[in-house]
Amino acid sequence: MTKQHGNDFSASLENAANDIERLLEQLLSVKPVDGEIDRPQRIIDSMRYGALAGGKRLRPFLVIESAALFGVPRSQALMAGAALECIHCYSLVHDDLPAMDNDDLRRGRPTTHKKFDDATAILAGDALLTIAFDILSREETHPDPAIRIALVQQLARASGLGGMVGGQLLDLAAEGRFGTSPIQDERSIVHMQSMKTGALLHFACIAGGILGNASKADRDALSRYGLAIGVAFQIADDLLDVESDAATLGKAAGKDAAAGKATLVGILGIPTARERLARCVADAEAALAGFGDRGAILRETARFIAARNK
Amino acid sequence: MTKQHGNDFSASLENAANDIERLLEQLLSVKPVDGEIDRPQRIIDSMRYGALAGGKRLRPFLVIESAALFGVPRSQALMAGAALECIHCYSLVHDDLPAMDNDDLRRGRPTTHKKFDDATAILAGDALLTIAFDILSREETHPDPAIRIALVQQLARASGLGGMVGGQLLDLAAEGRFGTSPIQDERSIVHMQSMKTGALLHFACIAGGILGNASKADRDALSRYGLAIGVAFQIADDLLDVESDAATLGKAAGKDAAAGKATLVGILGIPTARERLARCVADAEAALAGFGDRGAILRETARFIAARNK
Repeated sequence: MTKQHGNDFSASLENAANDIERLLEQLLSVKPVDGEIDRPQRIIDSMRYGALAGGKRLRPFLVIESAALFGVPRSQALMAGAALECIHCYSLVHDDLPAMDNDDLRRGRPTTHKKFDDATAILAGDALLTIAFDILSREETHPDPAIRIALVQQLARASGLGGMVGGQLLDLAAEGRFGTSPIQDERSIVHMQSMKTGALLHFACIAGGILGNASKADRDALSRYGLAIGVAFQIADDLLDVESDAATLGKAAGKDAAAGKATLVGILGIPTARERLARCVADAEAALAGFGDRGAILRETARFIAARNK
Repeated sequence: MTKQHGNDFSASLENAANDIERLLEQLLSVKPVDGEIDRPQRIIDSMRYGALAGGKRLRPFLVIESAALFGVPRSQALMAGAALECIHCYSLVHDDLPAMDNDDLRRGRPTTHKKFDDATAILAGDALLTIAFDILSREETHPDPAIRIALVQQLARASGLGGMVGGQLLDLAAEGRFGTSPIQDERSIVHMQSMKTGALLHFACIAGGILGNASKADRDALSRYGLAIGVAFQIADDLLDVESDAATLGKAAGKDAAAGKATLVGILGIPTARERLARCVADAEAALAGFGDRGAILRETARFIAARNK
């Protein structure tokens, strides 16, 4: 099941990453919107630093491939994917701050606050968060305002207090940060991770259904797929943290254990975690059954997420 | 021109503040949207602390009064006003952080990071920023998605890199924070302030025109009014900083001078700044000429902004 990923898949992933990089490059350029207000160069520089750091661009890739199921023009999926990537990147910039995870290294280079300073990193994160909704509001994302506002609503909910941000707070609480008892039970860890990393991955998968005005059944299928790969992603991430080294990972390894943070892998043990991971991949593939051959790339994406080594 | 404010005006302002407080109380309640995901209590508590601190609620009041010009249902204006207030409050929470302005006191009580901690304040700010767009996306804000997405776009632009956040960065640069030379010239100060505080006040005034699907001429009038009161607000704020004390202000006074920060009042001197302020009020009143008697409260609002003592 975890066979070598085909050339088609690798090429699709790389193409998407290149297209997203190019679009973000353009969206975060110095040219003022409407030509009316000067933008301070430092905020542009720090936003670009935080968002143009490369990476797999997995979330936009999921938007593109889920949108492709319904024949959505690629340019629209790229816009929604770029907005989502701005949210993902802002969360990394803020998460790395000294007051949060205090990380100096991200994708093999200094984090945004190390490269600039803490105040600039806070503002760069705020600006990336904000521009995500600006991007979704534009006609290039979809000609129908009802579709655009649906994307705004779903992205806000996936990334806000009931999604990513809430999950980040639970994650800090799990370390005992606020005088809280560290969480150690499986249910609480799964819940925290479903918010912290699962919610954005889930949004990436349902975004294609929103853009394509898909049927309820198709949206539900994408939602089930998104939930399954969210859990798979996190288990794979935890396994990487345990088994990898900083050189491969491009960031500090073994950090969770060092922080005394409970992970699913720590609780279940590596073999059981691997079984759980395989089951998530199977669930993800099963969710796509109704799409037949059209779902091939998304099925391979689920296997890729489980097998990735950085 | 700066006569005592009428009972009608004071009552309108107080009613709006009460209505906004009640709506924010409800929007930031613990009840989960859709009942699907638990929200961590600490993020709710910190968001509420940052947003339910009372205050004049001037920005929502401007949304309500500009919307009233076009017969927009008050409930819709309140939703847009609440979204805007979430943006305003998030900016205060982040601005007060040690890495930014390092303020311990806001509206006479500990700032959010003093009451909680820095990490929680960063996340509370992120969550308030995000929920603003969630609020705008809801049908209660306006039944027409095209109107809702227009509000999303304008609010994102007013608060992002070309608006408030960009202005905050310029403000830090003006203190020489990044090894930059402190800005001392009038044009640069006006430009920075038009972004930092002017952009949100301008949004508050045009929001009513968007909600009311107003004519181009009426929107332009509100835009001119919004620009004029933005400058007036800032000059009045600078005068307060120079002339007031912490007890009246509810926050540290004389802070700008202590930070070696140039202000318009510092450059122009108090008498000239007062003249400039009066001219802004006159410009604001003139912009509303076309609305006749319907513009009475907004005209009084301009005078109130110039004369306020906290």
